Amino acid sequence: MEYRIEHDTMGEVKVPAEKYWGAQTERSRNNFKIGPEASMPKEIIYAFAYLKKAAAMANADLGVLPTEKKDLIAKACDEILAGKLDDQFPLVIWQTGSGTQSNMNANEVIAYRAHVINGGSLNDADKVLHPNDDVNKSQSSNDTFPTAMHIAAYKQTVEITIPGLELLKSTLESKAKEFANIVKTGRTHFMDATPLTLGQEFSGYAQQITNSIRSIKNALEVVRELALGGTAVGTGLNTPKGYDVLVAQHIAGLTGLPFITAPNKFEALAAHDAMVELSGALKRAAVSLMKIANDVRMLSSGPRCGIGEIIIPDNEPGSSIMPGKVNPTQPEALTMVCAQVIGNDVAVSVGGSNGHFELNVFKPVIAANVLQSARLIGDACVSFNNNCAVGIEANLPVIQQHLENSLMLVTALNTHIGYENAAKIAKKAHKENKTLREAAVELGLVTNEQFTEWVKPEDMVGSLK
Amino acid sequence: MEYRIEHDTMGEVKVPAEKYWGAQTERSRNNFKIGPEASMPKEIIYAFAYLKKAAAMANADLGVLPTEKKDLIAKACDEILAGKLDDQFPLVIWQTGSGTQSNMNANEVIAYRAHVINGGSLNDADKVLHPNDDVNKSQSSNDTFPTAMHIAAYKQTVEITIPGLELLKSTLESKAKEFANIVKTGRTHFMDATPLTLGQEFSGYAQQITNSIRSIKNALEVVRELALGGTAVGTGLNTPKGYDVLVAQHIAGLTGLPFITAPNKFEALAAHDAMVELSGALKRAAVSLMKIANDVRMLSSGPRCGIGEIIIPDNEPGSSIMPGKVNPTQPEALTMVCAQVIGNDVAVSVGGSNGHFELNVFKPVIAANVLQSARLIGDACVSFNNNCAVGIEANLPVIQQHLENSLMLVTALNTHIGYENAAKIAKKAHKENKTLREAAVELGLVTNEQFTEWVKPEDMVGSLK
Amino acid sequence: MEYRIEHDTMGEVKVPAEKYWGAQTERSRNNFKIGPEASMPKEIIYAFAYLKKAAAMANADLGVLPTEKKDLIAKACDEILAGKLDDQFPLVIWQTGSGTQSNMNANEVIAYRAHVINGGSLNDADKVLHPNDDVNKSQSSNDTFPTAMHIAAYKQTVEITIPGLELLKSTLESKAKEFANIVKTGRTHFMDATPLTLGQEFSGYAQQITNSIRSIKNALEVVRELALGGTAVGTGLNTPKGYDVLVAQHIAGLTGLPFITAPNKFEALAAHDAMVELSGALKRAAVSLMKIANDVRMLSSGPRCGIGEIIIPDNEPGSSIMPGKVNPTQPEALTMVCAQVIGNDVAVSVGGSNGHFELNVFKPVIAANVLQSARLIGDACVSFNNNCAVGIEANLPVIQQHLENSLMLVTALNTHIGYENAAKIAKKAHKENKTLREAAVELGLVTNEQFTEWVKPEDMVGSLK
Amino acid sequence: MEYRIEHDTMGEVKVPAEKYWGAQTERSRNNFKIGPEASMPKEIIYAFAYLKKAAAMANADLGVLPTEKKDLIAKACDEILAGKLDDQFPLVIWQTGSGTQSNMNANEVIAYRAHVINGGSLNDADKVLHPNDDVNKSQSSNDTFPTAMHIAAYKQTVEITIPGLELLKSTLESKAKEFANIVKTGRTHFMDATPLTLGQEFSGYAQQITNSIRSIKNALEVVRELALGGTAVGTGLNTPKGYDVLVAQHIAGLTGLPFITAPNKFEALAAHDAMVELSGALKRAAVSLMKIANDVRMLSSGPRCGIGEIIIPDNEPGSSIMPGKVNPTQPEALTMVCAQVIGNDVAVSVGGSNGHFELNVFKPVIAANVLQSARLIGDACVSFNNNCAVGIEANLPVIQQHLENSLMLVTALNTHIGYENAAKIAKKAHKENKTLREAAVELGLVTNEQFTEWVKPEDMVGSLK
Repeated sequence: MEYRIEHDTMGEVKVPAEKYWGAQTERSRNNFKIGPEASMPKEIIYAFAYLKKAAAMANADLGVLPTEKKDLIAKACDEILAGKLDDQFPLVIWQTGSGTQSNMNANEVIAYRAHVINGGSLNDADKVLHPNDDVNKSQSSNDTFPTAMHIAAYKQTVEITIPGLELLKSTLESKAKEFANIVKTGRTHFMDATPLTLGQEFSGYAQQITNSIRSIKNALEVVRELALGGTAVGTGLNTPKGYDVLVAQHIAGLTGLPFITAPNKFEALAAHDAMVELSGALKRAAVSLMKIANDVRMLSSGPRCGIGEIIIPDNEPGSSIMPGKVNPTQPEALTMVCAQVIGNDVAVSVGGSNGHFELNVFKPVIAANVLQSARLIGDACVSFNNNCAVGIEANLPVIQQHLENSLMLVTALNTHIGYENAAKIAKKAHKENKTLREAAVELGLVTNEQFTEWVKPEDMVGSLK
Repeated sequence: MEYRIEHDTMGEVKVPAEKYWGAQTERSRNNFKIGPEASMPKEIIYAFAYLKKAAAMANADLGVLPTEKKDLIAKACDEILAGKLDDQFPLVIWQTGSGTQSNMNANEVIAYRAHVINGGSLNDADKVLHPNDDVNKSQSSNDTFPTAMHIAAYKQTVEITIPGLELLKSTLESKAKEFANIVKTGRTHFMDATPLTLGQEFSGYAQQITNSIRSIKNALEVVRELALGGTAVGTGLNTPKGYDVLVAQHIAGLTGLPFITAPNKFEALAAHDAMVELSGALKRAAVSLMKIANDVRMLSSGPRCGIGEIIIPDNEPGSSIMPGKVNPTQPEALTMVCAQVIGNDVAVSVGGSNGHFELNVFKPVIAANVLQSARLIGDACVSFNNNCAVGIEANLPVIQQHLENSLMLVTALNTHIGYENAAKIAKKAHKENKTLREAAVELGLVTNEQFTEWVKPEDMVGSLK
Repeated sequence: MEYRIEHDTMGEVKVPAEKYWGAQTERSRNNFKIGPEASMPKEIIYAFAYLKKAAAMANADLGVLPTEKKDLIAKACDEILAGKLDDQFPLVIWQTGSGTQSNMNANEVIAYRAHVINGGSLNDADKVLHPNDDVNKSQSSNDTFPTAMHIAAYKQTVEITIPGLELLKSTLESKAKEFANIVKTGRTHFMDATPLTLGQEFSGYAQQITNSIRSIKNALEVVRELALGGTAVGTGLNTPKGYDVLVAQHIAGLTGLPFITAPNKFEALAAHDAMVELSGALKRAAVSLMKIANDVRMLSSGPRCGIGEIIIPDNEPGSSIMPGKVNPTQPEALTMVCAQVIGNDVAVSVGGSNGHFELNVFKPVIAANVLQSARLIGDACVSFNNNCAVGIEANLPVIQQHLENSLMLVTALNTHIGYENAAKIAKKAHKENKTLREAAVELGLVTNEQFTEWVKPEDMVGSLK
Repeated sequence: MEYRIEHDTMGEVKVPAEKYWGAQTERSRNNFKIGPEASMPKEIIYAFAYLKKAAAMANADLGVLPTEKKDLIAKACDEILAGKLDDQFPLVIWQTGSGTQSNMNANEVIAYRAHVINGGSLNDADKVLHPNDDVNKSQSSNDTFPTAMHIAAYKQTVEITIPGLELLKSTLESKAKEFANIVKTGRTHFMDATPLTLGQEFSGYAQQITNSIRSIKNALEVVRELALGGTAVGTGLNTPKGYDVLVAQHIAGLTGLPFITAPNKFEALAAHDAMVELSGALKRAAVSLMKIANDVRMLSSGPRCGIGEIIIPDNEPGSSIMPGKVNPTQPEALTMVCAQVIGNDVAVSVGGSNGHFELNVFKPVIAANVLQSARLIGDACVSFNNNCAVGIEANLPVIQQHLENSLMLVTALNTHIGYENAAKIAKKAHKENKTLREAAVELGLVTNEQFTEWVKPEDMVGSLK
C-alpha cells in the first residue's frame, strides 16, 4: 500500500496515498480498532456535509470566509451528499465521545478533496483549505457533532420512521373499516370474553400508531433545535455575531426541514436530552408495535390447533424440516425490531445520563442507537405492512364457531338477572359442556325466548357507537 | 381472630370479622402472598374512590341507579378519600394483571361500608348494595383499573412531579442570574476547556428542566384520557348511552383535573401506551437530573483535592469514621432516584409491550412503577432544591485560580494566528509548565500587548448574548 | 410531640423523646423526605444487627473493646433481630449513597438502647456507649453498608429465592413425569408443529429453573465475600490486625452462612459488581419464569375459544363484569414480577456503573432493588407453585383433537418421500381442508398402509430417549 | 442484472444468475428489507459452516448420508470458513425469528456451491445435493440456529472477549505493583478521604476484571451446550440414534472448543437462557469497565483545573477548536461500549423472555446483540489497554500536593482522641483554611509531637497487608 505524509499538531502521520482524509482521521483509525471499520452511521456523515456547507455559507455571509473558499467547501460537500465519497469515512462509533474525530474526518476530506477539485494534488504540502481554520471555521466538534446528530435523526425520523408508521396506520384503519361488521369473541387474560368486532380490534391498533406518531412528533420539536454556534463550550467563542441563527437557517434551507438554533447552547452541548426524548418516543412506538405484532401472530395461529381467526399471507416456506409450514415471519421481524429498540433506549439513557460539565461525551453511541431505532421502526413497518398487514383476512368460519361457543355471552344477562345468577349459568354450561342457552333454561333463570332476545352478540359490540 | 362468612360466585369465604372487605378480597389476600402486604399503591385506592363515586353519579344521572344507592356509594367513597379506610385495602401489586381484585376490593369495601353507614351490620346476609351489581354498575375491572391508573398518575404528576421540577427550575434560573458574571474555566471530556460563566452552566441545567417539564406535559395529554365506559373489552357493554363521556366529566369535576373519555376504548384497555409514554418522559427527566446532580457534586468536590468551584450546604456529618467530612448527599439521593426511574421505565416497557388481545394484564406493575417514578422525582427535586440547590455558592478564589491557569484560553488566538500556531503555544506552556503568555511571547507568535488585548476570559463567554 | 436534645459533630438536634435514635438519624429524616418513610429494607436493618454484633465480638477478641461494651452491643443487636426495635429505623432508601445515615441509625439505636438496657436514661448527656467510637469501632459506613447488603442479599436469596425456585422445579419435574406419555401437537412460531409429549414440554421448564438456580448460586460465590475490615477506603485504617478475617467468621457464625472476607477491599467498596452479578442472575431467572408462565396461560387459554390443552385451578372469580370467568391469575402475577425484576436489573446496572474512586454511592438503591427482586421471585414461585402449578391437569380431549388434526405430522414422511413431496401433501390437505391421509393417498405419494405405518405421533416424540 | 429460476415448495423465484443462493434466500431478501443488507453477523454464517460440516459427518457416520455427499458438503463448508463465499449471505437480522431463512441460505449455498464444485452448473435443474434433504438432513432451523448462536457466541467470547479482558487485567495488575508505594489521597463521594496507594486503586480495578472473567466463564458452561439433534421441537424427529451426541463431538473437533450436546433439547429450542446469561455476564463486565474507565478519566482530568493525579498517553489532538487539547479518548470509547452492552442486555432479555411453546423466535436479535457485546468488550479492552492503560503514569507532584492538603488524615487521630475531637480539628482547619497540624495544636487536642507520630499517611494505607 502506498502512503503520503500528512501532519497535524501532534506531528506527521502516514496516510493511504489515494485517500482524501488526513492525519487526524488516520490516527483515529489506528487508535480505535473497535468493532467493524466505518461503523459511524452514514447518516451522520451526510449530515456533516449539510452542516459544513451551511457553515461555510454563513461564514461567507458574515464576511469571515472568502467566497471562493465557501464555494470549494460547498462543492466537496455536494460530492459527499451525492454519495461519491462514501469510502472516505473509515471511522467507527467507538472513538472519542465528542465525535471530534469524525468532525475532523469531514474537515479533512472536505479540505483535501476541495484542494483536488481546485486543481491541486493530495501531495501538495500547502493546500487551498485548512481543515480547522477554514472548513471548521466558527465551529467546534462540540457543536457540530450534536448538530449532525440532530440533522440525521430528524431526517431519518421524518423520512423513514413516520412514513412507515403512517403507512401501517393507514392499512390498520382500512382493515378496521373492512372488518367493522365481523363480530367475534373477545379475549382478556387469554381467556374468552365478551364479543367485539374484528374491526374494533384493528381500530385499537390504529389508535396505538396514531398516538405513537404524535409522541414522536412532540420529540422532534426539540430535535429540530441545533447546537451549532455554541462552539467549544456553548458560549459561541470564535463565531461572528448572528452566526448561530443564520447557520440554522442555511441548514433548514439545504435540507428543507424546519431547523432552528437552540435557545440554550450550554444545554445543547452538555446534554442530549432531545435525543433521549426521541429515543423514548421510538421506544414507545416499539411497545405499541410489539403488542400489535403479537396479536397478529396469535390471532393467525394454527392453522388447526390455534386461534386461527385471521389469515395472513404466506410469504416463504416456514420450516426447513416441517413441509408445508407457514409462519408469521413479518410479525416476528417486527417484534425483534421492537426488542432492539427497547434495548437501544437503555443504551441512550445510560449515555445521556453520563454527560459531565460542558459536554456529553457519549455522542456517537447515542446517535448510532437513535438512528438505528428510527430506521428499524420505519423499515419494519413498511415490511410488515406490505408483506403482511395489507393481506390480512378474516377467517369467518373459525370466528363464527368461536363466537357461538363463547360462554361470556352470558354477560348480556347481568342487567336482567344480576351478576350472580348469570355466573351460575356460565358455570353450569362450562361444567356440563352445554350451551349457555341450555344451561340458562335448565336453571330456570331465563326462558328460551328471553335468551333469544337478550343474548345477541351483534348487540353486544356497539354500545359506544 | 374472629371471622364472618362472606360469599362470592365461587362459594363461601371466611373474612376477618371487623373488616369491610368481602370474599374476593380475602381470596386474593390468601392467594397472592408476594412481597409486603398492602403494596398496591394508595394513590390507586384513592383513584378508585373518585371513580366509583363518579360512576354512581353517572349511573344515577342516566337512570340506572337509584339516587339513594348513589348517595350511599358517595359517602363510602368520601370516607376512603378522607383516609378513614386505609386499612381496608390489604392487597398487593402482584395479583391478577387486570387489577380485578383491587377493583373488587373497592367494590366490596364500598358496598359493605355503605351498608353499615346505612345502619346495617357486616353480618347481615343481604346488604343494601351489591359489590358487582351496584358499586361496579356500568363498569368492569378492565376499564376501571386503567382509569384509576390514569387518575392516580395524572394527579401524582401534576401534584408532586411537576411542582418539584418547577421549584428546582426556578432555583436554577435564580442561580443562573446570580452567577451571571462569574467567569470560570469550562470543562469538556473532564479536561480544561475555554471559559464560560457559572451562570451559563446553571442556565443549561434550567433549560434541561424546562424541557423535561414540557415532555411530561406532552405525555399527560394522553394520560388524561380515561378508559371508563369501555367495560369488559372496550365495547361498553352494559353501559347506558352517553355514560363514558358523562362519567369522565364527573371525574374531572371531582378531581378538578381535565379528564376526558378516551377516543378509542379498545386501545385504552388493551394497551397502556399512555403510561409507557409518561414513564418515558419521567425517565427523560431522570436523565436530565442525573447530569445536573453529577455536575453539582463534581463541581463541589474537595474540599482540598478536588474541583471545588462551588460550595454546597453541609447538612449532616458525612462519615461514620472520617471526622469533619461533608458529602454531597442530596445529589446522591437524586442520582439514586434517577437510577430507579431509569430501571422502572424498563419494567413499564416490558409490561406495556406484553398486552394481548383485548387486555393488557400488566396493569398493577405498570401503575406501581409510574407512580413511584413520579413521586420520587418530585420528592427528590424538592429535597435537592431545599437542602442543596438554594444554598449553592460560588467558590470564587478557586474559580479564579483555575481560570488563570487554564491553557485553553489560547483558543482566543485561533482567529488571529491560526489553530496550529495556537496549539504550539499551548503545548509549550504545558510541557514547560509555563503560562500561556510566557509561551506565546517566547515563541514570538504574539507580543505581550497582543496577548493582553486578545486573551481576555471575560470576552470569551459572551458571543451569543 | 415531646423531644429531647441530641448532638453530633454539627451541633444539637431535637429528637422524638421516646425514640432510641440520635442526632444523625434525625437529620437524615428531616433532610430526605423522599418517598415513604422507613423505606430502607428491613433486611438491611437486620443485617446491620448481625454485623454490629460480630464487629463488637471481633473487637473484643482483639482487645480493642471491653467485654462489657461488647455484651451491651450484643444485647441491643439481639433485640433488633428479635424484631423489637423495628420502629427505630425511620430512614429511607433515598439518602446518602453510602448508606452512612442508616449505619449511623444502627450505631445510634444500638448505643442508646444499650444505655437503657444498662439502666440509663435516654436523657442522660453521657451514655455508656458512643455510636462512633464504640458501636462503629473498626468500621466505616463504607465497609459496613456493603457488608450489610451482602448479608441481606445472601440470606434473602438462600432463604426465599432458591427455595421458591426449588419448589417450583420439583413440581415441574413431577408434572414432566406425570405427563410423560401424553402426546400432543407441538407449536413453533405459534403455529402447529410436530408432536411432543406434554411431559417433554414440562421437562424444558424444569431445566430452565435448574439452570437459573445454578446461575444464582454462581453469583452467590462473590456475594458471600464481605467488605468489612476495609473501613473508609479499603485500607483497613483503624482496624486491628486480623480483624477482617475474624469479623467475617463471626458473621458466618451468627448467621450460619458461609461468609468470608473479601480478597480485595478496594473493589468491595468502590464497586458493587457482586450485587450486579446477583441481580443479573435473578433477571436471568425472571426471563425463564416469564417464558414458563406465558406458556401456562396460553396453554390453558379458552375455555372454548383458545388452545385449552391444560387446565389450571380456579382460584377466584376472574371478572367483575363477566360472570363465571376464570383467569390465569397466578401466571399473571408471576409475569408482572418478572417485568419488575428485569427493570430492577437496569436500575442496579446504572447504579453499579456509576461508582467513582474509592466508593460507589448507589449502595441503597442497589440493595433495595436486589432484595426486592430476590424476594419477589421467591414469593411468586411459591404462590405460582401452590396455587397453580401443582394443580395443572392435562385436558386430554382437546389435546387429542389437536393432535389428530395437525398437518405437521407430515414431517414423518420426509425421510421416506423427501421434503418437497411431503410439502405437497400438507399443502393439499390445508387448501382442501382434508386430512393428511386423504391428501397423501390422493396424491399417490404414499399408500394408505404406508401412511398408517409411517405417521404415528407416538413414534415422533421419542428419538432422543 | 441476469437471473436464473430456482424453486422451492411455494413455487419459482428469480435469483441473481451468479449467486449460489436459491429460492428461499431470495424470498427473504425481498420480503425483509429492514436495515442494511447482510446484517446477519458473519460469525453466525461461519458457525453454520462448522455445523453443516459436522452434521454431514455425523450423518455419514450413522449411515444416513453417502460419503460422497458428505465430502461435497464439507468442501463447500470449508470454502465458507475460508471466507470465499462471504458475498453469498445477503440476509438480515430482521427476518423470521427462528432464523430459518439464514439456515436455508446456508443450505442453499452449500448445496449449489457443492454442485458446482462437483462439476455442475447453477442452471442445472437437478443438483447433486438437495438443500433440505441432504444439507439439512437430521436438522431443523429450530436446532441449527441456536447451535450456530452458541458456536458463534462461545468462539467470540473465548477468542475476543476473554483475551481482551485478560490483557487489560494483566496491565492493571502490573500498574498495581508499579504504583504500590505511591501514597495518595482517597476520595469517597468525590470528596477527600483517607489515603491509600495508587497501586491499591489499581488492584481494585484488576479484581473487578478478574471477577468479570470468572462470571463470563460460568456463563460459557451453558453456552457450550448445543441444541443440535432436537430438530423441529426438541424430540429429535428424523435424526438417527446417537446423532445428537456425535454431532456435538464433531463440532467440538472442528472448532477445537469443548462443545457438548444439551441435556434437554426442549429447553434449548424454546428458551435462550444461556445467551441471556452470557449477555448478563457481559453486562456485568461492562459495569466494571465503566467504573474503571471513569476513574481513569477523572484521575487524569486537568491538566491544570482538574484532579490530575495520573497522566495518560496523548494519542490525538483532542479538539477541532481548542489548540493543544488532549482528551481521554480511550476511556470514552470504552464507556460508550459499556453503554451499548448495557442496552444490548435489555434487548436480549426482552427477546429471551418472549419465547412461546416449543420455540423462542427472537433468535437472530439475541444472537446479534450478544455477539456485538462480546466483540465490543474484547476490542475495546485491547484498544484501551494498548493506547491508554499501559501508558498510565503517576503525576507525583500533584499526588503529593493533594495528600499533604487533605483534611481526612485526621482520621488517624480517632483511636487516640475520639471521633468528635478529631472532627473539631478537621472543621477548624477547613473553616480557617489551616493545616490539620495547626488546628490540632491550637485546639490543644494533640501536641505537635503527637501529630507527627500519629498522622503518617504512609502508615494509613497498609492495615490489611
